[in-house]
Amino acid sequence: GKARVISTELLPNSEAEWKRLVKTTYIGQDGVTRTWEHAERTTRPEGSAFDGVSVVAILEKDTGREILLEKQYRPPLDKICIELPAGLVDKGETAEQAAVRELKEETGYVAQALTTSPIMFNDPGFCNTNFKLVEVSVDMSLPENQNLKPELEENEFIEVFHVKLDDLWDECVRWEAQGYALDARLASFAKGIQIAQ
Amino acid sequence: GKARVISTELLPNSEAEWKRLVKTTYIGQDGVTRTWEHAERTTRPEGSAFDGVSVVAILEKDTGREILLEKQYRPPLDKICIELPAGLVDKGETAEQAAVRELKEETGYVAQALTTSPIMFNDPGFCNTNFKLVEVSVDMSLPENQNLKPELEENEFIEVFHVKLDDLWDECVRWEAQGYALDARLASFAKGIQIAQ
Ligand SMILES: Nc1ncnc2c1[nH]c(=O)n2[C@H]1C[C@H](O)[C@@H](COP(=O)(O)OP(=O)(O)O)O1
Ligand SMILES: Nc1ncnc2c1[nH]c(=O)n2[C@H]1C[C@H](O)[C@@H](COP(=O)(O)OP(=O)(O)O)O1
Repeated sequence: GKARVISTELLPNSEAEWKRLVKTTYIGQDGVTRTWEHAERTTRPEGSAFDGVSVVAILEKDTGREILLEKQYRPPLDKICIELPAGLVDKGETAEQAAVRELKEETGYVAQALTTSPIMFNDPGFCNTNFKLVEVSVDMSLPENQNLKPELEENEFIEVFHVKLDDLWDECVRWEAQGYALDARLASFAKGIQIAQ
Repeated sequence: GKARVISTELLPNSEAEWKRLVKTTYIGQDGVTRTWEHAERTTRPEGSAFDGVSVVAILEKDTGREILLEKQYRPPLDKICIELPAGLVDKGETAEQAAVRELKEETGYVAQALTTSPIMFNDPGFCNTNFKLVEVSVDMSLPENQNLKPELEENEFIEVFHVKLDDLWDECVRWEAQGYALDARLASFAKGIQIAQ
C-alpha cells in the first residue's frame, strides 16, 4: 500500500515524547535581552554534543564511484524522501560506532568508518538538531556484503539503492520531478559535487 | 559584547508564535495506522510549498571562485554559526525574488538569480522545514556593489565574508576548532566539493 497522512493536530508540549518546543532568553551582542523560540529532540544522550549521524558510504565500482542512499516515507512531509543512511546516536556510543551500526541495521552492509566531520546543525534558527557526517568504506567482496540482512524496526520501511556520484545532482532534480522529497544534507552535498565538476 | 543564553524554558504550544509541534496520524505501507511527532514553522505563506531560500553567491576572482558566507549568533545553539545567506519567503514572492531581496538586505550585494533547486527538507524525521537553494551571480564591477549597505532588522547582527570554494571544507573543519557552529547545508555542500576534488 501507499503510506499517507490521515490527520494532523496541534500537539501540546506536555504530551510530546520525542520533540519539544523551548523559549530561550538571551543577551544579544548589543547588550539587549530578547527571547527566541526553537524546537529540540528529547532524545540526545546526556553528555553528547550531537543527536545522530549521517553516513556517506561510497562503493568503488569499475564504472565509477557510487553512493548508498535510502527511500523512506516521512510523515512530516507526507512523501517518500531520498536521504543518506542516518540514525540517532546511543548513549556512550561514538559517531563512528553509530554510523557502522545504523548502516548495518538499515541496509545490511558491513562497513568501516574512515573520517568523521565536525558537528553540523540542520536549521540553526529553527532547532538545535545536529549530526556528524561519517564517511565509511564498504568492502563489496566480503561474504557479509553479498547477502544483505537489514534489521529494521517494526515501523521502519527503508528501500536501499545506489547511484553514481557524478550523476547525483541530476538525479536529485529527476527525483523531485517524480514526486520524491529530497533531504537537504544530501541535496546540498550533491550541489557541491556539481559545482566542483 | 558577546551574545549568550541566559535561560531556557519549555514553551507551551499555545504561547508559541513562530514554531509549533504537531502530531500526525498516518497509515504506513503495511496498512497499520501510527502517529508521528514533528515541528513546523508557523510562517510558511499560504499556498507556498517551501519556507525560505538559501543563496549560493559565487564571486569570480582572478585567484579563483569565492563564496559569500555569514556569521550569525544563533540562540538555539548559543553559538555563532557559519551559514549561507538565507531568509524566509514572503507571500506571493518567487524563490528567485526572495533570494535577491534577502541577499541585498543581509549583505548589501545586488545579485541576479541564475538557477533554482528542487525543494530541500532540513531534517525530514524531525520537522517539515524546507527551502530552495538559489544560485546567483554578483557583478562586482557594479557601483552598487562597491559601497555595501545592508538593511538589517534591529535584532539581526550578521557578519559577511567570503572564502575560496576550493578551501571550503578545510575552512569548515578550522571554524569548528575555533568555536563556531556549522550549518549543515553549507557543510554538506563543502563536503560535496571536497569529495569531487
Ligand atoms: N523570537 C523568535 N523566535 C523564533 N523565531 C522568530 C523570532 N522572532 C522572529 O522574527 N522569528 C522568525 C521570523 C524570522 O523571519 C525568522 C528567521 O528565522 P531563521 O531560522 O533565522 O531563518 P533564516 O534567516 O532563513 O535562517 O524567525
Ligand atoms: N512517533 C514518533 N514521533 C517522533 N519521533 C519518533 C516517534 N517514534 C520514534 O521512535 N521516534 C524517534 C525515535 C527514533 O529513533 C527517531 C528517528 O528519527 P529520525 O528523524 O527518523 O532520525 P534519523 O533516522 O536519524 O533521520 O524518532
